[in-house]
Amino acid sequence: MSVQLSQDELKKQAAWKAVEYVKSGMRVGLGTGSTAAFAVDRIGELLKDGTLSDIVGVPTSKRTAEQAESLGIPLATLDEVPKLDVAIDGADEVDPALNVVKGRGGALLREKMVEMASDSFVCIVDDSKLVDGLGRSKLAMPVEVVQFCWKYNLERLRTLPEVAGCRAELRMEGDAPYVTDNSNYIVDLYFDTPIKDGHAAAKAIAALEGVVDHGLFLDMVTTCIIAGANGIEVKDK
Amino acid sequence: MSVQLSQDELKKQAAWKAVEYVKSGMRVGLGTGSTAAFAVDRIGELLKDGTLSDIVGVPTSKRTAEQAESLGIPLATLDEVPKLDVAIDGADEVDPALNVVKGRGGALLREKMVEMASDSFVCIVDDSKLVDGLGRSKLAMPVEVVQFCWKYNLERLRTLPEVAGCRAELRMEGDAPYVTDNSNYIVDLYFDTPIKDGHAAAKAIAALEGVVDHGLFLDMVTTCIIAGANGIEVKDK
Repeated sequence: MSVQLSQDELKKQAAWKAVEYVKSGMRVGLGTGSTAAFAVDRIGELLKDGTLSDIVGVPTSKRTAEQAESLGIPLATLDEVPKLDVAIDGADEVDPALNVVKGRGGALLREKMVEMASDSFVCIVDDSKLVDGLGRSKLAMPVEVVQFCWKYNLERLRTLPEVAGCRAELRMEGDAPYVTDNSNYIVDLYFDTPIKDGHAAAKAIAALEGVVDHGLFLDMVTTCIIAGANGIEVKDK
Repeated sequence: MSVQLSQDELKKQAAWKAVEYVKSGMRVGLGTGSTAAFAVDRIGELLKDGTLSDIVGVPTSKRTAEQAESLGIPLATLDEVPKLDVAIDGADEVDPALNVVKGRGGALLREKMVEMASDSFVCIVDDSKLVDGLGRSKLAMPVEVVQFCWKYNLERLRTLPEVAGCRAELRMEGDAPYVTDNSNYIVDLYFDTPIKDGHAAAKAIAALEGVVDHGLFLDMVTTCIIAGANGIEVKDK
């Protein structure tokens, strides 16, 4: 129980540090997930107490939109605001080059669209997310695929040489496949050993027809804020 | 009126010629559109009269599935039959290198998945579809995009250097956006002059997050059957 609380405290510390990158007048990408939620809360707080003003938030999921709305953060979409100043979001894994795996929360496509549209991308994690190679955590690396012939695409993903040895599973929600905000399915890839060449894997996965996007976010993070027992570390790309 | 009939006659001639590539025991990709429909009809006929047997058809759209079913053609999906012997489908434009534009009918993603899974792809057209460069017909080159922030992606497509000068329009169906079989939208690109480098354009379009697929089918056609006033021409890649 105390470990759980402590991890939440670390997430909050990283999130608060990240919000220091937000200045009045900025257009801000708002991430999805437990760590990003602390950042959204903090932005709401600073807007309320007048420290920040004239912020426009671009949420990466319906969930985040609802949270931000409840806090009174003015919102827009990429349709209205196609260029952002900064995006703040968590990650599921971070490697030494600041390449990350994201999307275990299922919002990977919207997260990638928003974060690619941003001048800077501040990634916030507790130090349990650090890995020496992507895939090391043995948790899911998600791939969003169209529903049509998902078994065919699952099998093609599983047998791609660039992700050799991975396990591939359709993400479920109870008895039914999990459906993304874009009406697609998620195939989760699990690795016994880290992905050898993340760029090659990303390219091969993206090249499959019916793959909409994947959880490898490469060369996107500009700053990573890592909260650990010994304090906060800021790593710039 | 007579021109219309004559074009249908040409489409039928090309389709019948293509069905000569189908042998008993084969797994056959069944295209979508007015020309492909003649091929599906012909396969149904040859199954009925016993010329062909033991055929499995993999349809590229709900429409084609319904047509094939009504003709008694046994059907499967890529989930069950991941490798096909031959696929037969029409095209909207064919260039001298047998690169084609497809998907004006809205089934581009399923067509591409099925045709990529096939050892050979026989493309059937009447000679009005021949162009000296893709885009020349001034008709739509479709791009399938997720509904989320489609305006943002339309604008990004319109301003891609690789398709410089194109017009981009959301495809409509009456008053509402046209929705694909995969619950996505279509952005149609229109060109005043042909696309300079199809491969570069395909790569740039596919790299945009939120683009699911596009109508450039490059290096896929193995045989093109062209029906014209002077007869049928068969071009092999």
